[in-house]
Amino acid sequence: MTDRHTAMDKNELPEGPELKIEGRNAVIEAFRAGKPIDKLFILEDCQDGPVMTIKREARKCGTQVKYVTRDRLDQLSETGKHQGVIAWAAAYQYSSIEDMLAAAAKKNEPPFLLFLDNIEDPHNLGAIIRTANLAGAHGVVIPKNRAVGLTATVAKTSAGALNFTPVAKVTNLAVTIEELKQKGMWFVCADMNGVRMYDLDLKGSIGLVIGSEGGGVGRLVREKCDYAAAIPMAGDIDSLNASVAAGVLAYEIVRQRLT
Amino acid sequence: MTDRHTAMDKNELPEGPELKIEGRNAVIEAFRAGKPIDKLFILEDCQDGPVMTIKREARKCGTQVKYVTRDRLDQLSETGKHQGVIAWAAAYQYSSIEDMLAAAAKKNEPPFLLFLDNIEDPHNLGAIIRTANLAGAHGVVIPKNRAVGLTATVAKTSAGALNFTPVAKVTNLAVTIEELKQKGMWFVCADMNGVRMYDLDLKGSIGLVIGSEGGGVGRLVREKCDYAAAIPMAGDIDSLNASVAAGVLAYEIVRQRLT
Repeated sequence: MTDRHTAMDKNELPEGPELKIEGRNAVIEAFRAGKPIDKLFILEDCQDGPVMTIKREARKCGTQVKYVTRDRLDQLSETGKHQGVIAWAAAYQYSSIEDMLAAAAKKNEPPFLLFLDNIEDPHNLGAIIRTANLAGAHGVVIPKNRAVGLTATVAKTSAGALNFTPVAKVTNLAVTIEELKQKGMWFVCADMNGVRMYDLDLKGSIGLVIGSEGGGVGRLVREKCDYAAAIPMAGDIDSLNASVAAGVLAYEIVRQRLT
Repeated sequence: MTDRHTAMDKNELPEGPELKIEGRNAVIEAFRAGKPIDKLFILEDCQDGPVMTIKREARKCGTQVKYVTRDRLDQLSETGKHQGVIAWAAAYQYSSIEDMLAAAAKKNEPPFLLFLDNIEDPHNLGAIIRTANLAGAHGVVIPKNRAVGLTATVAKTSAGALNFTPVAKVTNLAVTIEELKQKGMWFVCADMNGVRMYDLDLKGSIGLVIGSEGGGVGRLVREKCDYAAAIPMAGDIDSLNASVAAGVLAYEIVRQRLT
């Protein structure tokens, strides 16, 4: 930490290596997950239960606490929903696919990874990381360019999952998929023209590829996949929300693994 | 329509009986679904393909078009994502459960309805209506009080589904559920302490009850349900996003109906 963080000017907000965590639950979860919090901003005179819990966690960790006005918090906030608490943490570290595969091996589980082909909406990315955590996936892989990264909104929408589920960034999804196929992983992409998901064998070592909100899975990535899985659609419109589609497909994999 | 709509003052925005539809796709879908559009605001000098399509639809329907500046559109916008087009439509009409049951009977399908116990986030409500449409549900039921209603954000997030999937508002969800049980419907609620969803028989005439983002399904409503269904959760955090949970459960019902 350098002393540039003592100033409250907007130009002095954390960039690059730092991340703001906003809202009570998100901050409590971050402390409990052992995330290093560099600095904590709390609304002055705020004394209710969750805030007292946060103060206690901060004392335990020796975290520097600043008591500030609501205006200052509003100014610092990226999400507009700070609930009186903003923490500056070391940025969520991107993980590596190797670490995800090692974690799967350690749990004695076949690897289950989610690959996101250019998800742009931070709420969708957060909800997908949340789903990945609960579906027992070992990690989420996103491309370096064009897609949204791990912003404060993603962290908040992930409801704490970002503290547990690793996210890796790769230069080229298609190349990464090809490399992992050579290590024995199978890849299935979401595609409404694919085979009905119930009719595919989705057990074993699997990568699930979800496309962007507008365009679906890109052609180059789709061509690398072993299967295209379709969610049956009875209705009048085109497609599910990207995070709902990811949830439905991820849970079809869970079902096949469990039953 | 009264002439109060010719003024552009913020105080003259449509209230109650009218609804703003924002964004190109949402406006095109509304025209194509035959929704009555009272008035259309388009960014001046905007001539690209989707906007030309919208102008053509407006001409066909005899809709009044106003060309306005970006500032005026921004001022009119509720979502901040108007993409140069805002339509004022007659509000989405709430439907009745009787009409939903009649629609199911006409299609010769057992009724499949979604009941939302106080969903507060318009993005979640929109995504759930979108899911209901594609999962082949015959309608969505929401309570009159406390929950979010059919706002412009809900319409936009539903990606057009609100034009096809009816939404009913009821005074008391528990009372409505009791009445429908007496007509032979079964009710299952999302509950992480329930029975694993794969182990329940979810075929037949069914109401799926989804709880609010924070509190899940309320006790009174839960007690009326025949089953409590749990989504298996492998991870470290508490719960899925409400619209993802609704999607996963709705599609378990779809799977059991199809396979």
